[in-house]
Amino acid sequence: MMVTATSFHSTDRRQNKPALPPYCFTMSDGVFYYKDVPIAEMTRIESFSASHRLHNPELTDARNVEMFGKCNNPNGHGHNYKWEVTLRGPVKPTSGMVYDLADLKQEMGFVLSIVDHKNLDLDVPYFREGKHVSTTENLAVFLYDTLKANMGQPQMLKKVKLWETDKNVFTYKGVHTPE
Amino acid sequence: MMVTATSFHSTDRRQNKPALPPYCFTMSDGVFYYKDVPIAEMTRIESFSASHRLHNPELTDARNVEMFGKCNNPNGHGHNYKWEVTLRGPVKPTSGMVYDLADLKQEMGFVLSIVDHKNLDLDVPYFREGKHVSTTENLAVFLYDTLKANMGQPQMLKKVKLWETDKNVFTYKGVHTPE
Amino acid sequence: MMVTATSFHSTDRRQNKPALPPYCFTMSDGVFYYKDVPIAEMTRIESFSASHRLHNPELTDARNVEMFGKCNNPNGHGHNYKWEVTLRGPVKPTSGMVYDLADLKQEMGFVLSIVDHKNLDLDVPYFREGKHVSTTENLAVFLYDTLKANMGQPQMLKKVKLWETDKNVFTYKGVHTPE
Amino acid sequence: MMVTATSFHSTDRRQNKPALPPYCFTMSDGVFYYKDVPIAEMTRIESFSASHRLHNPELTDARNVEMFGKCNNPNGHGHNYKWEVTLRGPVKPTSGMVYDLADLKQEMGFVLSIVDHKNLDLDVPYFREGKHVSTTENLAVFLYDTLKANMGQPQMLKKVKLWETDKNVFTYKGVHTPE
Amino acid sequence: MMVTATSFHSTDRRQNKPALPPYCFTMSDGVFYYKDVPIAEMTRIESFSASHRLHNPELTDARNVEMFGKCNNPNGHGHNYKWEVTLRGPVKPTSGMVYDLADLKQEMGFVLSIVDHKNLDLDVPYFREGKHVSTTENLAVFLYDTLKANMGQPQMLKKVKLWETDKNVFTYKGVHTPE
Amino acid sequence: MMVTATSFHSTDRRQNKPALPPYCFTMSDGVFYYKDVPIAEMTRIESFSASHRLHNPELTDARNVEMFGKCNNPNGHGHNYKWEVTLRGPVKPTSGMVYDLADLKQEMGFVLSIVDHKNLDLDVPYFREGKHVSTTENLAVFLYDTLKANMGQPQMLKKVKLWETDKNVFTYKGVHTPE
Repeated sequence: MMVTATSFHSTDRRQNKPALPPYCFTMSDGVFYYKDVPIAEMTRIESFSASHRLHNPELTDARNVEMFGKCNNPNGHGHNYKWEVTLRGPVKPTSGMVYDLADLKQEMGFVLSIVDHKNLDLDVPYFREGKHVSTTENLAVFLYDTLKANMGQPQMLKKVKLWETDKNVFTYKGVHTPE
Repeated sequence: MMVTATSFHSTDRRQNKPALPPYCFTMSDGVFYYKDVPIAEMTRIESFSASHRLHNPELTDARNVEMFGKCNNPNGHGHNYKWEVTLRGPVKPTSGMVYDLADLKQEMGFVLSIVDHKNLDLDVPYFREGKHVSTTENLAVFLYDTLKANMGQPQMLKKVKLWETDKNVFTYKGVHTPE
Repeated sequence: MMVTATSFHSTDRRQNKPALPPYCFTMSDGVFYYKDVPIAEMTRIESFSASHRLHNPELTDARNVEMFGKCNNPNGHGHNYKWEVTLRGPVKPTSGMVYDLADLKQEMGFVLSIVDHKNLDLDVPYFREGKHVSTTENLAVFLYDTLKANMGQPQMLKKVKLWETDKNVFTYKGVHTPE
Repeated sequence: MMVTATSFHSTDRRQNKPALPPYCFTMSDGVFYYKDVPIAEMTRIESFSASHRLHNPELTDARNVEMFGKCNNPNGHGHNYKWEVTLRGPVKPTSGMVYDLADLKQEMGFVLSIVDHKNLDLDVPYFREGKHVSTTENLAVFLYDTLKANMGQPQMLKKVKLWETDKNVFTYKGVHTPE
Repeated sequence: MMVTATSFHSTDRRQNKPALPPYCFTMSDGVFYYKDVPIAEMTRIESFSASHRLHNPELTDARNVEMFGKCNNPNGHGHNYKWEVTLRGPVKPTSGMVYDLADLKQEMGFVLSIVDHKNLDLDVPYFREGKHVSTTENLAVFLYDTLKANMGQPQMLKKVKLWETDKNVFTYKGVHTPE
Repeated sequence: MMVTATSFHSTDRRQNKPALPPYCFTMSDGVFYYKDVPIAEMTRIESFSASHRLHNPELTDARNVEMFGKCNNPNGHGHNYKWEVTLRGPVKPTSGMVYDLADLKQEMGFVLSIVDHKNLDLDVPYFREGKHVSTTENLAVFLYDTLKANMGQPQMLKKVKLWETDKNVFTYKGVHTPE
């Protein structure tokens, strides 16, 4: 029933951790491997409110207006973001659960404390001083990476989906273009 | 079929106009009165995105934090507001309509151009320099008054309803406490 | 506990029935009056799909285009309508209910059979040959009147609300302008 | 600016308190009366999950099945209830708010602790032993009365609205039929 | 145009049936294979209301509380579940449809009759006596397997998605961890 | 950084264009290839209202009724369709965006002008004279193909999802059954 984590190849460059497939779990005394149990996905949905301005300081003001339109308003604007996190893994026979919801709430809560009721450009280091334009695409990448780095079982994170409005939605699954 | 508008008592102190009941309409050549036709309500729903900070400059910083909590974050935050406008009046026999939707879209569009993709505290004179705290209550009053002042048939405006989030909603019907 | 229905004044001209207040109920052997029990509102929501064209045959084609815009498209268009019916009355002590939901479903179902998966202008006599323009205002009036005429306890009907789209909603409460 | 609460007539029989109109507030040192400020409504929406069975022990089993249908299933069933609470009062000039949202969350939270993740018939004394059938009508009355008895400013409570499903909604405004 | 079903390899251990790819259909007189027509997905959404308690009788009471929190309430609680079923297959040229919606409604209706307005733990044999903890993960597996076993074209079933609340969603696609 | 488009194999038979993978972009002066940047999905949601009748003129009237039920009503019916378009591609470092939203709105707007406030069977050549039955499956294929043929970066189109009602949804990803 136990295998060692080191036998799995890492697929995530940005975290120096061995990557387990989602049907393996690290316990205090090793790695558990679930055999012939259903694999399910679990999605948790939270909301947060933040302000931002789309602006790339490396471009001229005219180019910024052309590229970002009314989202480039100098004093900014804001959104209620809806954040969906999807995990994938075996349904554990004892609990009947994919992941402990209390754990996930706490892990997402840590990430939410960084962005909720904040100005993304001024309050969040990842976006400060134009390091990244605070588009919802980049925000989705930030939420994915920050959550994954703070999860007990990061190999189970499948995707994040981020609603900017009822009409604009963005998804990130941790995949990059080929080098 | 025609009556003069001046025979109606004004109920709105803040606009120096005679107030018609919602079953009367000013046309270019007088006032039309609809007799024995159904009275219906019509609600139009639009959205806008804005940022703000809850802060009353007349209070101490400590009192502001106590009163407004995380909504007092110095760099602000933001929302997608959902704005519902309800009109009430006779269903006109020729058109089968309460109000011309194209007119209402234009009238609401003028108001939206003031708040959409804006920082309420810095971009909207009504809230600037702490004149009014930019709570959703005060924003609902501002939207109601500004829309009413720009409508062709202001006597038909019944209420505005403003969703700050999926869980917090505010309604204003143009009524004040007694003097 | 019993009163006669005839002691109540009729408020609905279009139905030649005595009108009871919503805290009275006709039973097979008379009228029951509920004393000192809570009055609640009950709303049931159903959907239907129909097509129509906004067109008043008494007007010129040019005036129809001006008044109804793209809704005047000669071949028509359609909607998923969401229909909310609100009743108001005492919570009966024995059942804990305002109205028998099975009854209301059947009564609304009869009305739905007239409009669901239909062309309003061609299939529904109320709108046929331009008798009434098939606006959502007029459709709300038709649904209200038709439901009321087919209810076991019509005095409880408080309003109908009709969603044409997510952004346009209409309400009718059975009230007419003064004669 | 101050009036005494005793000058107002009580409208709520079930709470032995003087009833203030919603534009008055009790402070530690008296009653504040707001003059000529906008009156707004504020709605807060929460959710809870509970189980129940519709059953009146005073009726025969056959009559219970006839009256409640599948809701009379002996082992019960359950719902995610959506609970909307609407307050009405003046927008206070200093805060720009109708009511302190932190207070309302705490007051609603106390009521939620009684019903959330509970069996209404077994865990809530109001419904136990068939005292009240656990219909959504009766549940709305219970939530209204319990919230009002635990609010700092109960005169501001205007209504509760309770969604049993997406298609069935109930509203209670604290009104009884005449005695 | 015809192939025999036996030439396809079974991928579903739990049903002793040959598995067809979703672009093949069994008709009364053989198997039809659709060539070069679009493959689409069709999702049908239904709702049901049920009660349950999360409890594993093999664990101590203390461990159950620790694992399931308020979902372990001895008298249970309940939910309105939203159930999405997704099929995948060719758009048949004659009907323009992926699957006969009337058939799917009937097949889903059979499954709904097992869980709607029921206590999952007491009324559904799959969960009775703690055989499976009635988590939404396990419920999704049960709905998937039961629907598949009762479908005319089971090879088209792609996934079921089950909303426990507006914030917790679970998906099952019929896949198990490797043996 | 530049590659030529002709080195990619075409996967779309129906458009005589070379197909780029979604991490390549044609600019006025060549093809840009993004290396080691996050790939995200972007979904834009629009609505339109249309009428139609499900009817295949090659079948008998009796067979049409049997196959399409109330959707075969001779005078038709209609829907509010909700249309989701999902693109997939690299998040461009300069803009932080997957695709220019203003471009996508214009491209979707062209397609919407063909179907919005129209009778699909009479106003849209693709469905006219029974060429294709106007099911939502076929409508999804039409929207996908028409949008793709009018996009600046068609290789990024991943799927269209079309809601006919709140309970019936269809998805098309541009895939056909094998020939």
